[in-house]
Amino acid sequence: MKRIALLLLAVATVAGVVASTAHPSRRADEEAAPVFGIKIFPGYRDWRLISVAHEAGNLNDLRAILGNDVATKAYREGKLPFPDGTVIARIAWSYVPSEENNKAFGREQSFVPGPAPDWYLQFMVKDSKKYAATGGWGFAQFDKDGKPADEAKHKTCFPCHEPAKAHDFVFTRYAP
Amino acid sequence: MKRIALLLLAVATVAGVVASTAHPSRRADEEAAPVFGIKIFPGYRDWRLISVAHEAGNLNDLRAILGNDVATKAYREGKLPFPDGTVIARIAWSYVPSEENNKAFGREQSFVPGPAPDWYLQFMVKDSKKYAATGGWGFAQFDKDGKPADEAKHKTCFPCHEPAKAHDFVFTRYAP
Repeated sequence: MKRIALLLLAVATVAGVVASTAHPSRRADEEAAPVFGIKIFPGYRDWRLISVAHEAGNLNDLRAILGNDVATKAYREGKLPFPDGTVIARIAWSYVPSEENNKAFGREQSFVPGPAPDWYLQFMVKDSKKYAATGGWGFAQFDKDGKPADEAKHKTCFPCHEPAKAHDFVFTRYAP
Repeated sequence: MKRIALLLLAVATVAGVVASTAHPSRRADEEAAPVFGIKIFPGYRDWRLISVAHEAGNLNDLRAILGNDVATKAYREGKLPFPDGTVIARIAWSYVPSEENNKAFGREQSFVPGPAPDWYLQFMVKDSKKYAATGGWGFAQFDKDGKPADEAKHKTCFPCHEPAKAHDFVFTRYAP
């Protein structure tokens, strides 16, 4: 009996390692990003669409901006500044041509999401007390495996968002 | 009393006209698109994000593809063909540069949603019996005021989607 129990334990352990290798984000999701201490928000992929964008140049990505309930309500009502509890998620995918779509259109015109870049996932979290020194916003960036970007990277977030002060430091407008 | 009643009626009528001019889509939403008889689905703007795209060329738009619960589940599970009840919504906005974002980035690289083009809103609706002649899909297109495109336009939908037969006539893949 003891041998069978040990064997089962060994099998279970191996299975556990395989499962966590197949889904690295399940563990990495638990890691908080530096500076603002923000973790990946569970269920963010189900949030409502705020807008989309294409960043050309070095980024060369297609992106979607999603909002939690507080963010979506504030956006739709045009409320500024965004209330505490607002969370905005930004997902980016590399910008690649779609051969299949181009064939249907009969020309090279269709660009779709490709592999995830290092800046795959970002969050802006409004907490006017906790993040008072950065306009009331906390920032976080994660790669597709849920690994946060480093401290130096996170220190660039707020300076870059400062030009959008008139829109509460948020660049994205609501796409109706 | 009769005069007051008439006056109130006149005021109410004028107010009604003003209201419907300010919100034309409230009435137009009721109009079914020709050929497949599909109306705008209430609440589609709250559906989950399936993917995003940029169509260059004559269309020159940025688009978001949203799915109802049935569509989202099928996409996430990689289920083909899509089950009956699947509804996919496609919203398009004209592709315009963002001066504000470009200023922050220090270069011309940011493109965001602008005014709605005539092909603002499209739906694909799966009903394998009702739409058996067109691969099980019904199609509909509306402008931003909720006015459906004409019959000739709707007759181009399925022929254009035929090259995507191997993916159940749907071009869009899920963006993870």
